[in-house]
Amino acid sequence: MTQPQKRAVVLLSGGLDSATALAIACSQGYRCYVLSFDYGQRSQTELNAARRIAETLQVAEHRVLRLHLEDFGGSALTDSSIEVPEGETEGIPVTYVPARNTVFLSLALGWAEVLHAEAIFIGVNAVDYSGYPDCRPEFIAAFETMANLATRNGVSGEPIRIETPLIDMTKAQIIRTGLELGVDYAATLSCYQADAQGRACGHCDSCRLRAKGFADAGVEDPTLYVPEGER
Amino acid sequence: MTQPQKRAVVLLSGGLDSATALAIACSQGYRCYVLSFDYGQRSQTELNAARRIAETLQVAEHRVLRLHLEDFGGSALTDSSIEVPEGETEGIPVTYVPARNTVFLSLALGWAEVLHAEAIFIGVNAVDYSGYPDCRPEFIAAFETMANLATRNGVSGEPIRIETPLIDMTKAQIIRTGLELGVDYAATLSCYQADAQGRACGHCDSCRLRAKGFADAGVEDPTLYVPEGER
Repeated sequence: MTQPQKRAVVLLSGGLDSATALAIACSQGYRCYVLSFDYGQRSQTELNAARRIAETLQVAEHRVLRLHLEDFGGSALTDSSIEVPEGETEGIPVTYVPARNTVFLSLALGWAEVLHAEAIFIGVNAVDYSGYPDCRPEFIAAFETMANLATRNGVSGEPIRIETPLIDMTKAQIIRTGLELGVDYAATLSCYQADAQGRACGHCDSCRLRAKGFADAGVEDPTLYVPEGER
Repeated sequence: MTQPQKRAVVLLSGGLDSATALAIACSQGYRCYVLSFDYGQRSQTELNAARRIAETLQVAEHRVLRLHLEDFGGSALTDSSIEVPEGETEGIPVTYVPARNTVFLSLALGWAEVLHAEAIFIGVNAVDYSGYPDCRPEFIAAFETMANLATRNGVSGEPIRIETPLIDMTKAQIIRTGLELGVDYAATLSCYQADAQGRACGHCDSCRLRAKGFADAGVEDPTLYVPEGER
């Protein structure tokens, strides 16, 4: 008799960070149940990236849940009337989607409870990040506490863990870790406003953090950019 | 110049408790933004009840968000292959929907952040209730802590409150409070397996708690039941 394999729900956006978090979960021996969201984000090509990554990493299951966050508005990522900024901004940027990680983790928690999963992986990062409040370690700790009161886990005594393997890494460290685990970064998409062919703008906050990460890691950037002449 | 009215997001299922919580929020002077979910629950007639209640109480806005919780399964309320039990059960019942209140509150939080609302009202109750872990006061407190770290509120210093006006009331007290505030309980629906005409079964846990509440309050039960002969 073999031991039943431990299970994890892994949030996957299709970007560089979540792809790396998934590769780490797989490398730690988890059977991975991957969850992506179609939440009215500008970048539908992001979901195609998520599908490619999940397939490559041979996950147990990949679900894409439709979520109507665009009904609430309030973010440049879900409201096409708000422009995605290019260059540095102050404070919490307009690309912040209200309560996004809370909503994503909550839905992951519901699935984790049904699956009897031990962990939820999320690729948040508090070093080379955009300043979103729901990427901070204190938020993650508070979510984990809440999650263990919200569910059967809190009653049965089998706690669920929120795993954030990237939280203290620089973008360059994330990239190096992913490359060691065989992540194909050409398949990932980080841009907030990629075009229909999945080409990145090269100018938004997410593109700039990503490009700097490849430069700092001393690795060739495999990102397909929209040529400057076409912009 | 009049003071801008304070705002609250109110979760409304269409049942007796959430209708009373909404009436309380209105009575406290909040401009109410009401959120209901179409989450693959058995009882679609519940949503019709929610629409009637929101209309009667003249709320600022009522949104019904589609949420595909049935994809996860694991509950008699979203999976038609699991039977709704009738009579007493032990432990957490199969009608418990994994992480439901966490998911609902998270989405309410996203809307509250966009609206700059001060409070989220939820009609949870820890006295005459079904033993769901996500109805306990310690869960609500942990959610509020998490919510204030998750959002702009935690950064700007305008905290958001999770209001649970029913949490310590008996069902009879809830009913008396609602009647004082003019709630029309004939318009509410609590049954886990109401028929297409909105008639209650009279036997599920939710029906039994509700009927006992009316009896204890000494108030005539306005619920429309499926006649025993038709069951």
